[in-house]
Amino acid sequence: MIRTIVWTGEDLRLLDQRRIPEETAYVACRGWRDVAAAIREMVVRGAPAIGAAAAYGMVLAAREAAARAAAGDPAPAPAAGARAGAAGGPADGAAAGAARRALEEAAAGLRAARPTAVNLFWALERMERAAARHLGAGGRLEGLAAALEAEARRIHEEDEAADRLMAEHGLALLPDGARVYTHCNTGALATAGWGTALGVVRAAHAAGRLRRVWVGETRPRLQGARLTAWELAQEGIPATLVTDSMAAALMAQGKVDAVLVGADRIAKNGDTANKIGTYALAVLARHHGVPFYVVAPLATVDPAAESGADIPIEERDPSEVTHVGGVRVAAEGVDVWNPAFDVTPAALIDAIVTERGVARAPYEASLAALMDARP
Amino acid sequence: MIRTIVWTGEDLRLLDQRRIPEETAYVACRGWRDVAAAIREMVVRGAPAIGAAAAYGMVLAAREAAARAAAGDPAPAPAAGARAGAAGGPADGAAAGAARRALEEAAAGLRAARPTAVNLFWALERMERAAARHLGAGGRLEGLAAALEAEARRIHEEDEAADRLMAEHGLALLPDGARVYTHCNTGALATAGWGTALGVVRAAHAAGRLRRVWVGETRPRLQGARLTAWELAQEGIPATLVTDSMAAALMAQGKVDAVLVGADRIAKNGDTANKIGTYALAVLARHHGVPFYVVAPLATVDPAAESGADIPIEERDPSEVTHVGGVRVAAEGVDVWNPAFDVTPAALIDAIVTERGVARAPYEASLAALMDARP
Repeated sequence: MIRTIVWTGEDLRLLDQRRIPEETAYVACRGWRDVAAAIREMVVRGAPAIGAAAAYGMVLAAREAAARAAAGDPAPAPAAGARAGAAGGPADGAAAGAARRALEEAAAGLRAARPTAVNLFWALERMERAAARHLGAGGRLEGLAAALEAEARRIHEEDEAADRLMAEHGLALLPDGARVYTHCNTGALATAGWGTALGVVRAAHAAGRLRRVWVGETRPRLQGARLTAWELAQEGIPATLVTDSMAAALMAQGKVDAVLVGADRIAKNGDTANKIGTYALAVLARHHGVPFYVVAPLATVDPAAESGADIPIEERDPSEVTHVGGVRVAAEGVDVWNPAFDVTPAALIDAIVTERGVARAPYEASLAALMDARP
Repeated sequence: MIRTIVWTGEDLRLLDQRRIPEETAYVACRGWRDVAAAIREMVVRGAPAIGAAAAYGMVLAAREAAARAAAGDPAPAPAAGARAGAAGGPADGAAAGAARRALEEAAAGLRAARPTAVNLFWALERMERAAARHLGAGGRLEGLAAALEAEARRIHEEDEAADRLMAEHGLALLPDGARVYTHCNTGALATAGWGTALGVVRAAHAAGRLRRVWVGETRPRLQGARLTAWELAQEGIPATLVTDSMAAALMAQGKVDAVLVGADRIAKNGDTANKIGTYALAVLARHHGVPFYVVAPLATVDPAAESGADIPIEERDPSEVTHVGGVRVAAEGVDVWNPAFDVTPAALIDAIVTERGVARAPYEASLAALMDARP
């Protein structure tokens, strides 16, 4: 299985997903700004993968701060919009204060790279807490980068472990000989491990319980056609590609036993933001009596979002719709609407599969119980 | 408004819709085989346009037969699968018999070009009846081509007139300031006139009652992005292009007042075959309480199809899904399913707008009444 995120100890190598399936090439990120750019430009995508990449971005920011301190550089000015540093702590020497400001600037820059996937914010908060622990405990700048590196590695490893657990829980929901419909890419390319929804597909195939997976191509960026089809073909998992507009006809013909999708952000009530087109699949699945499952780690649940109305939806460049592979396909002069995500109301979701078990409606209670059970 | 089908009196010029919006170029068809190839390869598409083109194809076949007779060529052998000629009629000289066989061969070849759109069969039957009238009434080969030309021109002109009537009936269904969602191309490019569903949009715009039309791009062949967006931009009709997967999100936001689509074949009970993705829109519209209207001439109703189960669905080449504009977008090694059409059950259709008025459920009765009323 291909590695999407490779931490060399020196820098962060991200598989350039814009170039799959044509070639497998890595982009080397040597500073946090490289990581932010890679997230923004979708070199790396998929909510869990973005979180892990951003965590390493913070490690790079800490190293940059340490290098500046060693070189005796002046501390950078606080970034516009960043919170004022928690000045006056025991480690608040000039170098530590500068590092604190540098980390705030990096976190703000990384947060701004993509607004919908909450795993990004969650990972950055973990990194900020780790930094505060180190700097706050009478700490010094020395060792800060190492502490952050340890935390980033933990996030990365936990993501892998969560994928295996989700696959196990999700597999229990599928019938033998399952024909699964999936959308976008939720596989190894979207996470640090097996994938979320596609992890369940992998587990079903490994267990001999998968008949076929229908892959929605996922316009506009074609993550299904480019990425999911590529992952499945590499592993010999029986897969059939369709346009997004064909899902309904498949369901009408009784050829779909379950829809499995990932999530970019889940509100407390279970409303789920995911790749544009997910909501349509949920409506279609309900109409046809096909179960609709969301597979996502608990880090995807945003405790600050009461419902889907609190989730900001990123709108992306019109050229993603008007052009394919750099070639214009749409007529000139037409307006374009290009939201990257939509929100599926909890009422259309039959279950949310997490690493700690399967949540069912009402999700406010079931998700909270799983969150509280988190070690 | 661009002319899709131009009969010069000498040959048939078809606007090459595969090259829109990049350029407006015409393909000249000098024999019926050229017309069949143009239909098969989608130089011309849209159920009514295919019917009119095929009618002219029969004119070309009659002229070819006349030219062969004039040159003293031997009569062609009956085509494989063609019905045996109705030999023994009063006009059954050798030349007339040869012409009859030539027309049978042409009709069979044109019918085979695309299997779902019934307007093609309907137009060919009209042309065959016209030929039988001419040859049967003590007629001679002389004048056959002229008789067929007159019938083809009638089909062409009736199509134009039907468009105007459908637009009028459809307009009455729309609220002021309507925001309409449409799929595929049902405009001037799909018919001999204004279009069917897009004719209603044009009429609404002309009447100052259209706020906006949402254009679904219509994968895999992108007729919405390429053709509909082009037609609307040319006329300054406010249009916004979306991927097919965005329709549900638009409806959830209350931004769609009606869905208007065309039809390739309508069964007696109202079940409607139309471009793949239409059925999904019907399910989504019902879920959101948005009216879903089919706009099509009565020639689209197939009296031989009791229900949608009787409508054959054409499956097209996988490359339409895996490639865009000649460039491969999908990973290698994945299977593809590529049905060109799906069937929307009558229960999801709020009305069928025809040139003779609006049919409502139960459609078996309402469509039959309109058919009987046809002059």
